[in-house]
Amino acid sequence: MNKQISKRTLSRLPVYLSLLQEKEREGVEYISATTIANLLDLNHVQVRKDLSCASSAGRPKVGYETKVLISDLQNFLDYNNTKNAVIIGAGDLGKALLGYGGFTSYGLNIVAAFDTNPEICGTLIKNKPIYNAEKIEELVKEQNIDIGIITTPAQFAQATCDRLVKGGVKAIWNFAPTSLTVPKHIIVQNENMATSLAVLSNKLNESLKE
Amino acid sequence: MNKQISKRTLSRLPVYLSLLQEKEREGVEYISATTIANLLDLNHVQVRKDLSCASSAGRPKVGYETKVLISDLQNFLDYNNTKNAVIIGAGDLGKALLGYGGFTSYGLNIVAAFDTNPEICGTLIKNKPIYNAEKIEELVKEQNIDIGIITTPAQFAQATCDRLVKGGVKAIWNFAPTSLTVPKHIIVQNENMATSLAVLSNKLNESLKE
Repeated sequence: MNKQISKRTLSRLPVYLSLLQEKEREGVEYISATTIANLLDLNHVQVRKDLSCASSAGRPKVGYETKVLISDLQNFLDYNNTKNAVIIGAGDLGKALLGYGGFTSYGLNIVAAFDTNPEICGTLIKNKPIYNAEKIEELVKEQNIDIGIITTPAQFAQATCDRLVKGGVKAIWNFAPTSLTVPKHIIVQNENMATSLAVLSNKLNESLKE
Repeated sequence: MNKQISKRTLSRLPVYLSLLQEKEREGVEYISATTIANLLDLNHVQVRKDLSCASSAGRPKVGYETKVLISDLQNFLDYNNTKNAVIIGAGDLGKALLGYGGFTSYGLNIVAAFDTNPEICGTLIKNKPIYNAEKIEELVKEQNIDIGIITTPAQFAQATCDRLVKGGVKAIWNFAPTSLTVPKHIIVQNENMATSLAVLSNKLNESLKE
């Protein structure tokens, strides 16, 4: 069923999951699609449809058992099947990602980072080793890394990407503000801050006109 | 025409813009929707439709004049109408955003950051002043700040948000991994890294099955 799911639904599932985890911590044992919809400002029909991709646990009147829905979503999103990743570029953004504790619960294990700055190569940042960028290919191969996360300046992103691909990564998560050229079989997910900013600005302009 | 544009189209416009700026730097004077579509791995009909929301400059056979299309997109996205923003939380992510030079070209002017750490309050980071978080309301009012960017840990995000709202911001860009409650007239854009990660993981799983 994974094949048919739309990108939009897919990108809402982690949002549901994080809300449910919040509610579980607050002691909420059952939750309805309508409640979820209200809390997230979504339509309840949409929420029901989205959740039905990942779980068949919803019951009329009672709603979903929070714990079961969380586990169904985690399974569906494959968060229990951990993938290894490395970060290239241990600047502020790289450090922020290294220090973000939440990734392991999303099935992402950041193993190490690479940088070209000799002063930090060989040190630990946020308890993760920082290696010299010259060793990308070697270490990616050795440690069977699936995902390369690029947080370098734009002008170094393509060369970095090429090294990751040579090392054998299957996917690139690109935070550098530039487009990358990769072989057909490599997956690229671009993280473009400007995209969110455009949506925000547009909503803001509309609200100022009202 | 702004009213009818879909969120999906809207979030692609900055991607076109950044590609066009790259091409302009490379000296490309004219570019076709088909070329843009190929470079971004999108459908050319989609690209033509998206661009028609912002520009009527495309001509058969010739395509778009790069410079004109860039300027049309910038106007449409209101990037020439600068909005002031502050960042709350000068940790690694806050610093990464403070140091990101690209925001001004997207119409976002980050004026200052706030933190609770007395060691950095009163200093400059990336040439921007860091103020004590106690002063959020006062300074947001005084300096007419439109957007508050929250990069605090999750547990402080709601209190931070409340202060920003009291100070008079119109929009919140939330990077903290938690949901926020705001008055109806306030716009919230949540930046959820897990969302992108889910899309990436799902594509990766599908490709491994093939």
